[in-house]
Amino acid sequence: MSVGVLAAALVAAPSVTELDSAVTAVHRGGELMGVISFAASGALVAVRKRLDLFGMVVLACATALGGGIVRDLLIGRTPPAAFTDLTYLSASIVTALILYFIAPSRRLTKGPLEIADAIGLGLFCVTGTVIASSAGVGAPTAALLGMTTAIGGGVIRDVLSGEVPSVLRPDQDLYAIPALFGAAATATLLHFDVYAAWTGLLAAAGAVGFRLLARHYQWHAPLARHARD
Amino acid sequence: MSVGVLAAALVAAPSVTELDSAVTAVHRGGELMGVISFAASGALVAVRKRLDLFGMVVLACATALGGGIVRDLLIGRTPPAAFTDLTYLSASIVTALILYFIAPSRRLTKGPLEIADAIGLGLFCVTGTVIASSAGVGAPTAALLGMTTAIGGGVIRDVLSGEVPSVLRPDQDLYAIPALFGAAATATLLHFDVYAAWTGLLAAAGAVGFRLLARHYQWHAPLARHARD
Amino acid sequence: MSVGVLAAALVAAPSVTELDSAVTAVHRGGELMGVISFAASGALVAVRKRLDLFGMVVLACATALGGGIVRDLLIGRTPPAAFTDLTYLSASIVTALILYFIAPSRRLTKGPLEIADAIGLGLFCVTGTVIASSAGVGAPTAALLGMTTAIGGGVIRDVLSGEVPSVLRPDQDLYAIPALFGAAATATLLHFDVYAAWTGLLAAAGAVGFRLLARHYQWHAPLARHARD
Repeated sequence: MSVGVLAAALVAAPSVTELDSAVTAVHRGGELMGVISFAASGALVAVRKRLDLFGMVVLACATALGGGIVRDLLIGRTPPAAFTDLTYLSASIVTALILYFIAPSRRLTKGPLEIADAIGLGLFCVTGTVIASSAGVGAPTAALLGMTTAIGGGVIRDVLSGEVPSVLRPDQDLYAIPALFGAAATATLLHFDVYAAWTGLLAAAGAVGFRLLARHYQWHAPLARHARD
Repeated sequence: MSVGVLAAALVAAPSVTELDSAVTAVHRGGELMGVISFAASGALVAVRKRLDLFGMVVLACATALGGGIVRDLLIGRTPPAAFTDLTYLSASIVTALILYFIAPSRRLTKGPLEIADAIGLGLFCVTGTVIASSAGVGAPTAALLGMTTAIGGGVIRDVLSGEVPSVLRPDQDLYAIPALFGAAATATLLHFDVYAAWTGLLAAAGAVGFRLLARHYQWHAPLARHARD
Repeated sequence: MSVGVLAAALVAAPSVTELDSAVTAVHRGGELMGVISFAASGALVAVRKRLDLFGMVVLACATALGGGIVRDLLIGRTPPAAFTDLTYLSASIVTALILYFIAPSRRLTKGPLEIADAIGLGLFCVTGTVIASSAGVGAPTAALLGMTTAIGGGVIRDVLSGEVPSVLRPDQDLYAIPALFGAAATATLLHFDVYAAWTGLLAAAGAVGFRLLARHYQWHAPLARHARD
């Protein structure tokens, strides 16, 4: 659907109102995809940690909604959207339940999940930056909050399951940097007033591509000296 | 005292103002009981983790006040009540000090503590829902925030002591579900405008009973598939 | 520089405006020193935990900015100063980068770092109390928030690196108590309207001295009974 909206935006030279609602539709669709893929990642961590169905649901919700909740707290939007618009909460719970009942093997889910996670990362860093910016903060602050939205849920997932956040671990390919890249691109688009559905999707696609390349070529941040010697 | 207030409310067909102050008294008494039992649970975890007196005090305060602080942040009530009304903070510190000096054996405290914890859970999910609702959020949001109030302190206690939150662990009997039950009942009462001291206490009693039954009969959420095979 | 400002404040019997700007300058200088020393402590923990450069930067920022972010959330100052005034964020990142490139040995950095950390602790508990107080909370609340500012970053650092917060561990010399002492002294000064650049610095110096004495003489809180027997 978001591709259709994008095509319409490109072809039809739409009015501002149409563009706004197109942007909104893209955001909703994008956030929903991000929520579902992050919820799946949380639920599968719960399976790996041998938690129960309730643990699957909670880790799914924390991963999918945690970044947005932190962002909303930081910009003073209370109660956070995750508590008032229950679409995302419901989507997270349903995702966890589906994974509970079909119980796919890790081998089958690894590839698709990592792509879904990359898409979630790309979409969340864009929508997070847009939402932070609409709260009136400056461009650098909006970009930082966009990155926080994208990586915050995963950090909460890892802290709750008793592990050092994967975003900090040296065996993790670049993850936060692609999110920061997408958020910074979005903040730049907003700053120069050229943000629209399709430029926003371009920024998201850039972040997704960056993340997938980092995974494929195993780009790492350099280890700290002490650990190298 | 709260029972006396409840009886008075039942017998005397009190005016709205009297009911309001009765509700307030029940809330204060209930929150205080919840605070003390949660503080005791935090302090005893500190003993088990071989922390010092300061660790006992901090874990007691975090367990007793953490859920309410998170709830207040989420509804934008800043600074949180725990920082402005120092009754609860003082009660937590005194509880930790008493447990430090009398140092009861684990065998003696296990049973009473679990009952106290269930009572705290039941009371917090009701008062948390009422407070969230009075901030103007809808019924489902209020119920979610009520559950968060009831289980949040325990999650913070476990994260600070370096463990996976007990609410997520598969060896834990149902804990969050009774809290959600009490919170949902309270939100329903509020929604249909029939919340009063005694209906609120009924909701709390339902949650407490549910929790104690879950403990006695060891009701668990089902394990994730992967872990069952 | 802050010493020069202090001297000027003492010598010149300055007007209220001059004093205010002197206080502000002391605060800025003090916060910056605190930020740098806390960032260094976070970055060195990342080295010890064998994280990569990105982990060093994130732990440096979390340690240096975490306490202030928590304080700002608790007093409803959103977005937190750490996200809007990027001086402190930049200082944290630069500190982590410098430590990455010079990679000093642990033996060389241990002593200076502990002194820097004590200075950060002393300055943060004072500035945190002043900022909380300026948000209109009472003196005890301001003192609690000041202590939270001073110790919060370290707690976040330890939780993110998968450890029980050092402030809770029994092998840790008194840390939060000196911070509470400095915060309470500051709140008292503010309450009696005798807070100024030099009295604030005295309170900070008292907290720093208390902390360094606690380290030198290994003052501990007493262990919980269970652990002593």
